[in-house]
Amino acid sequence: MPSIDLNADVGESFGSWSMGDDAAIFGSVSSANIACGFHAGDPSTIATTARAAVTASITIGAHVGYRDLVGFGRRFIDASPTELADDVLYQLGALSAMARAAGGSVKYVKPHGALYNAIVHHEAQARAVIDGIRAFGGELPVLLLPGSIALELADKAGLRGVTEAFADRNYTPEGTLVPRRDPDALQHDPEAATVNMLRMVTEGRVKAVDGSLIPMKAESICVHSDAPGAVALASHLRAALEDAGVRINGFA
Amino acid sequence: MPSIDLNADVGESFGSWSMGDDAAIFGSVSSANIACGFHAGDPSTIATTARAAVTASITIGAHVGYRDLVGFGRRFIDASPTELADDVLYQLGALSAMARAAGGSVKYVKPHGALYNAIVHHEAQARAVIDGIRAFGGELPVLLLPGSIALELADKAGLRGVTEAFADRNYTPEGTLVPRRDPDALQHDPEAATVNMLRMVTEGRVKAVDGSLIPMKAESICVHSDAPGAVALASHLRAALEDAGVRINGFA
Amino acid sequence: MPSIDLNADVGESFGSWSMGDDAAIFGSVSSANIACGFHAGDPSTIATTARAAVTASITIGAHVGYRDLVGFGRRFIDASPTELADDVLYQLGALSAMARAAGGSVKYVKPHGALYNAIVHHEAQARAVIDGIRAFGGELPVLLLPGSIALELADKAGLRGVTEAFADRNYTPEGTLVPRRDPDALQHDPEAATVNMLRMVTEGRVKAVDGSLIPMKAESICVHSDAPGAVALASHLRAALEDAGVRINGFA
Amino acid sequence: MPSIDLNADVGESFGSWSMGDDAAIFGSVSSANIACGFHAGDPSTIATTARAAVTASITIGAHVGYRDLVGFGRRFIDASPTELADDVLYQLGALSAMARAAGGSVKYVKPHGALYNAIVHHEAQARAVIDGIRAFGGELPVLLLPGSIALELADKAGLRGVTEAFADRNYTPEGTLVPRRDPDALQHDPEAATVNMLRMVTEGRVKAVDGSLIPMKAESICVHSDAPGAVALASHLRAALEDAGVRINGFA
Repeated sequence: MPSIDLNADVGESFGSWSMGDDAAIFGSVSSANIACGFHAGDPSTIATTARAAVTASITIGAHVGYRDLVGFGRRFIDASPTELADDVLYQLGALSAMARAAGGSVKYVKPHGALYNAIVHHEAQARAVIDGIRAFGGELPVLLLPGSIALELADKAGLRGVTEAFADRNYTPEGTLVPRRDPDALQHDPEAATVNMLRMVTEGRVKAVDGSLIPMKAESICVHSDAPGAVALASHLRAALEDAGVRINGFA
Repeated sequence: MPSIDLNADVGESFGSWSMGDDAAIFGSVSSANIACGFHAGDPSTIATTARAAVTASITIGAHVGYRDLVGFGRRFIDASPTELADDVLYQLGALSAMARAAGGSVKYVKPHGALYNAIVHHEAQARAVIDGIRAFGGELPVLLLPGSIALELADKAGLRGVTEAFADRNYTPEGTLVPRRDPDALQHDPEAATVNMLRMVTEGRVKAVDGSLIPMKAESICVHSDAPGAVALASHLRAALEDAGVRINGFA
Repeated sequence: MPSIDLNADVGESFGSWSMGDDAAIFGSVSSANIACGFHAGDPSTIATTARAAVTASITIGAHVGYRDLVGFGRRFIDASPTELADDVLYQLGALSAMARAAGGSVKYVKPHGALYNAIVHHEAQARAVIDGIRAFGGELPVLLLPGSIALELADKAGLRGVTEAFADRNYTPEGTLVPRRDPDALQHDPEAATVNMLRMVTEGRVKAVDGSLIPMKAESICVHSDAPGAVALASHLRAALEDAGVRINGFA
Repeated sequence: MPSIDLNADVGESFGSWSMGDDAAIFGSVSSANIACGFHAGDPSTIATTARAAVTASITIGAHVGYRDLVGFGRRFIDASPTELADDVLYQLGALSAMARAAGGSVKYVKPHGALYNAIVHHEAQARAVIDGIRAFGGELPVLLLPGSIALELADKAGLRGVTEAFADRNYTPEGTLVPRRDPDALQHDPEAATVNMLRMVTEGRVKAVDGSLIPMKAESICVHSDAPGAVALASHLRAALEDAGVRINGFA
C-alpha cells in the first residue's frame, strides 16, 4: 500500500494579523511546517500552533526563514553563511522549546520562501542551512525541492533530504516549477491538481504544463495553506488519495 | 570556606553594534547572563558568546527580556501574561540551542531590565515569567531581586529563586536599591563597592547610602558589563573576594 | 444643518498580512487615520492607502502609535517623553511624504491604541505627543477621547483638540467607555449604535449602558475598520445620519 | 580656488547602541549622511544628529538603506521596485521632518551600504531609488559611485547625480574600488590617503593600488565615520586640503 506525506505552511499569523486557516488545514495534512518567528509567527502563535499540531497528531517541522517580517521571507537576503547558520539554529531552538512544551518535538526542517528557492542553487547558503540543522543536533531530515543543491549537501552531511511536489503549481517539461511570474505558474483547478498528484504517487509521473508526462518522485506533497482554495484542495486531495488506497503518512 | 557567585550581562551586541567587553568580563565572573535576542543579542552574537562562556567554564544563564530592541528592554511593556510566558519560552529555547551547540546548556534564568524590575511587584507578569520557565522544563533557578514577588511565585512553582546583590548600586536603609533617577543611585568607587560586597559575603550586611549597616543576603553579585568601569570593578571585586578566602562559584 | 465627521483606522496591513477592508470603509467615512509604520503599515501599504484616500476625497490623519508591531500598538510602553516625541515626529514626517506624493497632506493626528488610552491620564506622554506634533509644525488638530488630559495640553500648546465618540462602544453612566475587558464593552447591534450616534449629533446625548441618557458632545465619530461588522456599521451610520439631514464632513 | 565636499555617515547609533563619533567628525566634514531608521538611527538619534548638523552648519543628506537593522543595511535584499521606492520615500519623509524641526532641511540623498552597491548595476532597484526621490519632490541630488547606473537614471529623471571618491579605499587600475574581501581593499595610511585625495582634487587623478595614476573626478570625498581612524583621517584630510588652498564646501 503506497503512502505519501501531505505538508502545509502553518503558524504564519503575527500578533494581530492572521494568515491561513490552520485549524481547517490540520484536518487534511500529516506534516505542519510551523513558522519560527523570523518571517512570520510570534511566540504565542507558534505555541498555539504547536499545541494544535500535537492534538491533531500532525508531525511538526521547523519552517525556518530569512529574518524579514515585512517581506514575509519571500525576498532573497544576502546573509553570510555564519549569520544564516546561526539564524537557523536560533529558530530551531525556539520552535523546539514550543513543541516540547506542547508535548511534541520538531521532526524535520523546511526552509521557507526565498531561502527555499535560494538554496536550490546558492551553495554557500545551502551549506549554512545544513550547518545550522547539524548544530541543532538530532539529524533532522530536510524538505527540499527536487534538484536542490541542498539535497546533495544534506546527504554529505549525513542528513536525510526529502523531496516534495507542489499540488497547486504547474511543472515545466524539464520538471522544474513554472516560475511564479509566469501566468501558468499556478494550477488553479483542484481536480486537475488532484489527478496529477495521484498520478505522481501511483505512477511516478506528472503531467507538465505542455501536456507531456514527465517522471516525478517526491516523498511529500505541499499544499500552501495561505493560498486561496488551499483548504479545499488539501481536503479534496486527501480524500482522493485515500480513495485510491494511498495512506497519508508523515515522512518523518 | 564561604562562596559566592559573580554574574554579568553579556551577549548584548546586535549586528554591527557592539556593547560591553565580554571577553574581559569573562575573566572575572562565574555566571553569564546571555541576551536572547529580544532586547539584545543577534543569533551570531549569542552563538559566539555561548562558545566563549563554555570555553571559560562559565555558567550560562538566559537573560530574557521584553521584545524591545530600540528600548534595550529597559521600558516596561504591558504584555499580557500569555504573550510574556510565550516570549520567555521562545527565548529560552533559542538560547538553549545555541548553548548546546557550544557544548554547554542553560542553567538558570535572569529577567532583564524593565522586566526584572516589573516582576518585583507585577504579579501577573511575574507569574508569566515563572510559567514560561516551567514550560521550558528542567526547573531552572531564577535570579531575582530580594523582595521580588517573583521569588514567592518561583517557590510555589517548585523553582529555586536566587537573590542577587548589585556591586555598583547604592542601597537605601530599607534594603532596596536607590532608584536610578536619584543622583546617589550608583556606587562609583570600586574600592567602596568591593568593601561593601565583601561585607555582605562575610557578615551578611551592607552599608546603606546613609551609612547605616543593614542585613543583606544574596547568593550572587551582579557586575553590569555595559557600565563604564564594569570590567575593572569585576576584576577588583573577584581578587578581593579571593584574597579574603571567598570562593567564586556559579550558584547553578 | 448639523454636520459630523466619521473617522476610521486604515492602512493597518503589514507586508503580506492584510487587515480591514479599507476600500469599503472609504465609501462611508470622511477622515482616515492612516497607520504610520510603528504599530502597523509598511511603506507600500501607507502609499497605497494615501492614494486611495486622496482619490476618495477623504481627509488624511496620522495614526501615530507606539513602536510595537507584534503588539499592534495595543500595549502600553513606558517610553520616555523624548523618545515618544521623536517617534511621533518621525511617523508624521514619513506619512506626510507619502500623503504629499499622493497629492494630499496630513491634516490631523490621532494617537493609536494604547498610546491613545495612556495619554488620557499620563501627563508626560501626553505632553510628548503634543511636543512631537508641534515639532512637525502646521498646528495639526488632534483627535482625542473626551476628558483626555491631552486635550488640555493641546489647548495650552495652541493646538486644536477634537473629541470623538465611538459608535461601536458602550458608555458608562459617567460618560467613559466601558472597558474592553468588560463583556458589555462593545455595542454589537448596528441599529442601536446608529440610533445612539444620531442622538449624540442631534441632541448632544447618548444612552449609557444602564439605559440612562448622558450628555456627550463630539466632533467626530470613530468606526473601527478592523472590527467585524465595521464596514456595515459605517455604511448604515452614514446613511442614517444623511437621512436625518446631518452632513458628513471632515473636521479638519 | 578649487573646492570639494567632504561627507561622512552619521546618526548610526540605535537605542542603547552607539556607533561612530559624530561630534568629532562634524569638525571636519561639510555634508552629513544621516541614517533614516531602516539600517540604523532611531528617531531620537536622528533628531539629535540633525540638530548637531544644523548647529555646525553642515549640509544634511538622507542616508537611505534597506530595512535591515541586524544586517546594518550591508546585505543585498531583493526588494521589489515598488517596495524600495516606497521605503526610500518613507525614510526621506521621516528624516525631513526631523531636519525641519532642527531648523534645517534635507539637501541630498545617499543610498547606504548594500543598496549603494546594488544600484551600481541593478537597474530596477536603481530606478526605484530615483523614483522614491522624485516622489518626495524637491529634486534632491544623489551621491553615487562613479560608473553607477543610477547616475544615468538620475540624469534622465532630471536629478543631479553627484560622484564621490573614498579616502580610505584603494582603487583598481580600472578605477573601481578594490573589493572589501580583498586584503588591499582599505587604505590604512592616513598620509597616503590624504596625498591621493589631494591629487584627485588638484590633478583629477588618483594613484591606483598597483601604483599607476588613473583619472578620477568626484565632487565629494567620503570619510567613513564608523571606521577606526575615521575621525583622524577626516581631520588630517581637511587640514591638508585647506593648506593646499582647497575650499571645503557642501556640494548641495
